[in-house]
Amino acid sequence: MERKVLITDCADAQGLITKITGVCFKHQLNIIKNSEFVDNAQGRFFMRTELEGVFDDSLILFDLNEVLPDSSHVKLVSLSKKRIVIMVTKEAHCLGDILMKAYYGGLDVEIAAIVGNYETLEPLAVKFDIPFHFICHQDMTRLEHEKKMIEVIEAYQPEYVVLAKFMRILTPEFVARYPNRIINIHHSFLPAFIGASPYRQAWERGVKIIGATAHFVNNCLDEGPIIKQDVIPVDHSFSAEDLAKNGRDVEKSVLSKALQLVLHEEVIVYGNKTVVF
Amino acid sequence: MERKVLITDCADAQGLITKITGVCFKHQLNIIKNSEFVDNAQGRFFMRTELEGVFDDSLILFDLNEVLPDSSHVKLVSLSKKRIVIMVTKEAHCLGDILMKAYYGGLDVEIAAIVGNYETLEPLAVKFDIPFHFICHQDMTRLEHEKKMIEVIEAYQPEYVVLAKFMRILTPEFVARYPNRIINIHHSFLPAFIGASPYRQAWERGVKIIGATAHFVNNCLDEGPIIKQDVIPVDHSFSAEDLAKNGRDVEKSVLSKALQLVLHEEVIVYGNKTVVF
Amino acid sequence: MERKVLITDCADAQGLITKITGVCFKHQLNIIKNSEFVDNAQGRFFMRTELEGVFDDSLILFDLNEVLPDSSHVKLVSLSKKRIVIMVTKEAHCLGDILMKAYYGGLDVEIAAIVGNYETLEPLAVKFDIPFHFICHQDMTRLEHEKKMIEVIEAYQPEYVVLAKFMRILTPEFVARYPNRIINIHHSFLPAFIGASPYRQAWERGVKIIGATAHFVNNCLDEGPIIKQDVIPVDHSFSAEDLAKNGRDVEKSVLSKALQLVLHEEVIVYGNKTVVF
Amino acid sequence: MERKVLITDCADAQGLITKITGVCFKHQLNIIKNSEFVDNAQGRFFMRTELEGVFDDSLILFDLNEVLPDSSHVKLVSLSKKRIVIMVTKEAHCLGDILMKAYYGGLDVEIAAIVGNYETLEPLAVKFDIPFHFICHQDMTRLEHEKKMIEVIEAYQPEYVVLAKFMRILTPEFVARYPNRIINIHHSFLPAFIGASPYRQAWERGVKIIGATAHFVNNCLDEGPIIKQDVIPVDHSFSAEDLAKNGRDVEKSVLSKALQLVLHEEVIVYGNKTVVF
Repeated sequence: MERKVLITDCADAQGLITKITGVCFKHQLNIIKNSEFVDNAQGRFFMRTELEGVFDDSLILFDLNEVLPDSSHVKLVSLSKKRIVIMVTKEAHCLGDILMKAYYGGLDVEIAAIVGNYETLEPLAVKFDIPFHFICHQDMTRLEHEKKMIEVIEAYQPEYVVLAKFMRILTPEFVARYPNRIINIHHSFLPAFIGASPYRQAWERGVKIIGATAHFVNNCLDEGPIIKQDVIPVDHSFSAEDLAKNGRDVEKSVLSKALQLVLHEEVIVYGNKTVVF
Repeated sequence: MERKVLITDCADAQGLITKITGVCFKHQLNIIKNSEFVDNAQGRFFMRTELEGVFDDSLILFDLNEVLPDSSHVKLVSLSKKRIVIMVTKEAHCLGDILMKAYYGGLDVEIAAIVGNYETLEPLAVKFDIPFHFICHQDMTRLEHEKKMIEVIEAYQPEYVVLAKFMRILTPEFVARYPNRIINIHHSFLPAFIGASPYRQAWERGVKIIGATAHFVNNCLDEGPIIKQDVIPVDHSFSAEDLAKNGRDVEKSVLSKALQLVLHEEVIVYGNKTVVF
Repeated sequence: MERKVLITDCADAQGLITKITGVCFKHQLNIIKNSEFVDNAQGRFFMRTELEGVFDDSLILFDLNEVLPDSSHVKLVSLSKKRIVIMVTKEAHCLGDILMKAYYGGLDVEIAAIVGNYETLEPLAVKFDIPFHFICHQDMTRLEHEKKMIEVIEAYQPEYVVLAKFMRILTPEFVARYPNRIINIHHSFLPAFIGASPYRQAWERGVKIIGATAHFVNNCLDEGPIIKQDVIPVDHSFSAEDLAKNGRDVEKSVLSKALQLVLHEEVIVYGNKTVVF
Repeated sequence: MERKVLITDCADAQGLITKITGVCFKHQLNIIKNSEFVDNAQGRFFMRTELEGVFDDSLILFDLNEVLPDSSHVKLVSLSKKRIVIMVTKEAHCLGDILMKAYYGGLDVEIAAIVGNYETLEPLAVKFDIPFHFICHQDMTRLEHEKKMIEVIEAYQPEYVVLAKFMRILTPEFVARYPNRIINIHHSFLPAFIGASPYRQAWERGVKIIGATAHFVNNCLDEGPIIKQDVIPVDHSFSAEDLAKNGRDVEKSVLSKALQLVLHEEVIVYGNKTVVF
């Protein structure tokens, strides 16, 4: 007995749930959990089905393609641990939270390696016996730097790349290599304060709530499909530094939660949005 | 084209989703939204299916009973406005919120009547042209008082009875007459502070968060299946009166939200718990 | 024995608390509650002191001016009910919440009148016996329309003007007439979605949290000093209409809370920010 | 120039703020932040004053005692890092969060040592170079076990003892040794679910919100003065194990926040309550 997740993303039509669950039933798979969503504006159907049983993947997918509309996307994936590479700069809080949660089992993930454009976080990686690759960006073009990082990353064949406060902008080439597979934490409640120094912007604007946003990175201007957001209340007595300090707690918690959702196959991207089941 | 909700509550078995949605498909009903839950501890299956189409109710239910396990509970209900009677004592905030939301369309409900054991809230009922029945509890036994209230309530044939800060304890006889059809707001975060004066208890205990709980009333000791809870942060500077004043906002918002969930057929009761889809 | 609030806003200096509370002590005023804040970036000191006793206002202010730096702002105000005029268009939820809370004592305010550019909400005003002035904006220039509204508003001498979903942009002339005395509710978590149709923008962006912002109106581009903000979680299943419907609850609750803070003299404006004690 | 915090806890009287800040002014100390609270029910005054300057502690305290009522408690403490000992059993999440935050500067603390009644968490302590003392409770009386732990703890002279999921009940003797200096995390929203297995209790009751409570340990029956509480929403789909897993995030975040408040001298205990400035 194994556990897998079936993700269906197709044009909406009558009878889809019956047909899909019918195939599962035929293959004697037990439905542990099922979630659907129809985007009526776009006539699009999304379903996530958590299944238990003995899987003949190719036969199941064949049967599904028989009953589904043309150009449907179907994927049947195991819920076993996924491999990630984490990219960092100097700040430890997001990396630290992922390392610690992976350590005690709060996050189902295999951290294959950490890539940093500074050496600052190497000692933290060492504590947890994770390979740390220091790839300095100085005296290099952006493309040269990314080429070096890509070489390292590719060696690990990660399913996702996690930007845990990696503070450099990635080129469209880098991003295109990992479509909907790069997860970033933005230290503001997007789309507020999109540019640099969001905490300073928030302080200058005198907001009463600050937040953080975890999102996939794509080449859209406004920073990709949002996975998870959270906020905390603040007040006039917070300096820009206080906002940043308190914001760190939200950043790390939002990134870890988004990562868990992605790892657990609960997120489907479509256009610049996500369905989070 | 009409819209209805199908609620299924039965023993868990393989293929239930396929079978139920298959019946919907056969009757050419479009599934707008579907939610399922399996309580593995009890082997019980729950499903809420929002449907659009032309309904032959008895035929649909016949077909469903053919495919479902024995002693399943199935109900097919319209999403049209439901009729309620509200019971009150002296406090206006919960009643006021329901009246105002019903007035501007924030709550899909027909308020048939208000029953009060004090006259205090009659002027508020009059503003909104709702019949107000003052049934004083003085010089009567509890059963006599309830008998009078039941006579009035029965005349309106309400689907639900809402206790909007009705401050008297109801007898098991009264409660048994409306099984899972009486909704109450308790001014604490249950199961904390179950007894009298929860805000004073909260103040004495020095809690940093207070809350409110909307629940169905049954004859269990600990006050019935919970529908909705919410909380607000408080601190040392709140007196017991401040807690009560601030708590009122949570009470009214939790009661209105719970009521909306129930009216929209999103709540299934089982045992002393609820499934809220 | 009366209760008043002393608000001090001046250049920062050593000994200010001692000097100000010393004057209170000299006048035998009891300090019920005291809050201070120093904005170090601007070297500015703010203090709110809630006092109880017998007040000789001019003598107290004279003594304070003796000990405070030049060009300090000091105000000594009663905590009695303040008079407001509410401006509305067609939506009832914010107006309804203020009316209901004022009715049952959840908001310490005297609603002098309601001004609407549509007749829609007149029946609601009538229920609560508040004068409603329908001042249609059609066939008029913006200045002519505002002139008519100002005539009506001025007759009531309100301390604050509350825009409870008043959907027209006010001219700088109108705004300048009520400096830091116009309170608006913006149906987004500012500074996100500043322009029109924020809920549609939020839906298109796929955010996971929506919010509302109550702020003073001034002639700054980004909509004035923020008083209060709050948010609710949303997900992919919310249509733009669902966002708007759910957002209404946050809008009304944020506006009422901001209004209560202002009425209770807990808000000091400086620059484009507020100190909220 | 140094920074210290002055905590005053005394009988309420007129002029206290003037007198206390007057002493600060006389000693040319700059007030960075000042917070007061009067508990009117008990006629008690509390003040926390953050000061900057050159401190002659004994002279300042002498001057304060001159102006304060008899039997006042005054303490003048540095904001430098405080030393703690952490007690654990098997669960890593709370310990891990404190270690990680201390590592990257999110918590101003010196972790002198960790004491565990199991060896489970020794490797985690080793990663961060903190001495770990395994003191097995088997084959010992409770008093013998505590005696051994006390010997170890005393050697480090900690200012606070933090119970980071230490799952044994402490004797009144142990508790009495560290009055208001032992901080515990209770995995429920106190006073709900006081006894064993709170997550299972919560699941059986069908609550819609779960929480955690950080508190000082004393010998009161209901578990001591509350420092901090927080909650998360849950629903019917959470098993008791899911509640526990999700609850861990709240537990660790509440404990870390409570600890930071205590370390930063923002908490005053009185009776079974706290003032948290």
